[in-house]
Amino acid sequence: MTGYFRNNIARLQGYVPGYQPVGEEYLKLNTNENPYPPAPGVRTTLRKADPFLLRRYPDPVLNRLRDRIADTLGFARDDILVGNGSDEILTIVTRSFVGEGGRVAFPEPSYSLYPILVRIQGGEPVGVALAEDFSLPEEFIDIPAALKFLAFPNSPTGTVYPLDTVERLLNSSPGIVLVDEAYADFAEVNCLGLLSRHPNLIILRTFSKSYGLAGLRVGFALASPELIAGMMKVKDSYNLNQLSAGAAEAAMADQAYFQAVLKKIVRERERFRDSLDRLGIASYPSSTNFVLARFDSAEQARTTFEQLREKRILVRYFDLPRLRECLRITIGTPEAMDQLVQALEEIRGDQTR
Amino acid sequence: MTGYFRNNIARLQGYVPGYQPVGEEYLKLNTNENPYPPAPGVRTTLRKADPFLLRRYPDPVLNRLRDRIADTLGFARDDILVGNGSDEILTIVTRSFVGEGGRVAFPEPSYSLYPILVRIQGGEPVGVALAEDFSLPEEFIDIPAALKFLAFPNSPTGTVYPLDTVERLLNSSPGIVLVDEAYADFAEVNCLGLLSRHPNLIILRTFSKSYGLAGLRVGFALASPELIAGMMKVKDSYNLNQLSAGAAEAAMADQAYFQAVLKKIVRERERFRDSLDRLGIASYPSSTNFVLARFDSAEQARTTFEQLREKRILVRYFDLPRLRECLRITIGTPEAMDQLVQALEEIRGDQTR
Repeated sequence: MTGYFRNNIARLQGYVPGYQPVGEEYLKLNTNENPYPPAPGVRTTLRKADPFLLRRYPDPVLNRLRDRIADTLGFARDDILVGNGSDEILTIVTRSFVGEGGRVAFPEPSYSLYPILVRIQGGEPVGVALAEDFSLPEEFIDIPAALKFLAFPNSPTGTVYPLDTVERLLNSSPGIVLVDEAYADFAEVNCLGLLSRHPNLIILRTFSKSYGLAGLRVGFALASPELIAGMMKVKDSYNLNQLSAGAAEAAMADQAYFQAVLKKIVRERERFRDSLDRLGIASYPSSTNFVLARFDSAEQARTTFEQLREKRILVRYFDLPRLRECLRITIGTPEAMDQLVQALEEIRGDQTR
Repeated sequence: MTGYFRNNIARLQGYVPGYQPVGEEYLKLNTNENPYPPAPGVRTTLRKADPFLLRRYPDPVLNRLRDRIADTLGFARDDILVGNGSDEILTIVTRSFVGEGGRVAFPEPSYSLYPILVRIQGGEPVGVALAEDFSLPEEFIDIPAALKFLAFPNSPTGTVYPLDTVERLLNSSPGIVLVDEAYADFAEVNCLGLLSRHPNLIILRTFSKSYGLAGLRVGFALASPELIAGMMKVKDSYNLNQLSAGAAEAAMADQAYFQAVLKKIVRERERFRDSLDRLGIASYPSSTNFVLARFDSAEQARTTFEQLREKRILVRYFDLPRLRECLRITIGTPEAMDQLVQALEEIRGDQTR
């Protein structure tokens, strides 16, 4: 690393995303993508896009998409910030509220990007260990911080927290609380109802998982108009391209399709947990589109990960404390999960032979 | 503004992009968009895009597009960073090299986003006035700074600097020099040849102007593999969506079309300057796809701007020192420029009546 970089950047270990195979055939259950295509209207919208208009800058304030989101979720345009994926909004939030040395707290284990964003900013990341059952410890509620990240449901554990715990967190936190609801569409609860009462709450959503548009990079934040207005100054002017904005509008417009996809994934998630159970593999209850499976040992988890990969099935292994015994498995179609279960059966057979 | 924001953000006056009309018909010569559609291969690529694949995350390292850029410009994949528009790369560069209080220098007038990015970062922006003829003053070459921004050609003046001046700047600067070549495809010179000799040089390019893809948000940086690797850690993992990446590849693949478009725009630029000359309106020599016209007074420039707007023609007026007498006018098709010249003639007639 050359001497030009800030020290925090030079020292930084960058985020490692889940493996994205290019031009190889895998059953891909490692990055929580949706197994179903986006709503049919997305194809229609993209087909109708006029290449001649691509030479024009997109709308910097993205009002059409914001209005669509507002109407769908029962908010107003000014409550909404649209980003180039929800990762961009995590970056915007960090840059808006955290100065050098500023403390940012988050539970562990959780989304491993959080501490990296804090280090890039030159802030102080403070990971607070979740309780044994992955519930939120009092220490996290009480710790003073400019910003707290809370994934709800959490990844990679798949768990949600009681809403009154989140409300206590909001009341006890002098700074901003970002509730990352990337997976909330798959859950039976969410924190949207808390927004009107808590001026320090920002809720993050994404089109990547439930709407099946990871490839187009669209996320959004919900917060008070004051917070949104300030963050609008920090975002790049033209942060979302025309095609992604149009596709996200079309995807959200078709709520019947959306609900049908959610239902299929949630049903398959529960069926898959039953299958794991029959195989003698433990798993945590999940409010997401993935399941965290727990093996008897780190060795067994790692071996299973590798053997699945040999069978062209990708799942996610985290070489991190409390996760080394686990694999995070995205819920695919019933056919995909049958294929995975069969592969797990074969691997179990090999391992016990 | 609520008390949650960092002070530098709370105080910030955000960047104001050129007016982007939504659903209204204007002759749009205000944001330096290309008047010609992107290469035909862009349409083909977008038509062939499979909606089923949109549910997948894009390649985080964007190797196919990087290889296309590398092959086209005579560099290697590892010399290239791709961004969600060149604005995102300006943000990444600022976050990589500038800590709180870090000094960042740039000429004035230039791209008005530079000081705003520095303020967002909590750095110290130092604008150095260009000489009367818009040449680079020695003060800019000598001033110590963690980062210097140099638009080459400059906007909104349209001017380039002698390459040996840029080289002196690189030699005299202890920090990073970012040469922003957003408009360089329209110029007869550029700084690519300096890259191999200067480890502190980053060159920025964009698909927004010369390739006609402003709506898709694709820019890239060229620098040493060491600088690129460090900046890769700072960028969001999946910072460019699938469709924009594919479209940019297709646009760059068709160099014959690209060169033909450049030629038409450069020819029209010179014809337009002749027309201004005949109207008695001064203009600066331009190495870009716009012309900076100078009027007799700030009052006249502003009135002309407003009267053009009434005639549904948008140009850019900057209410800034040294620019109040000027209008920045994007080069459109010959028909568009004829329409503008006729409107200017009518306005002149009204003004002198």
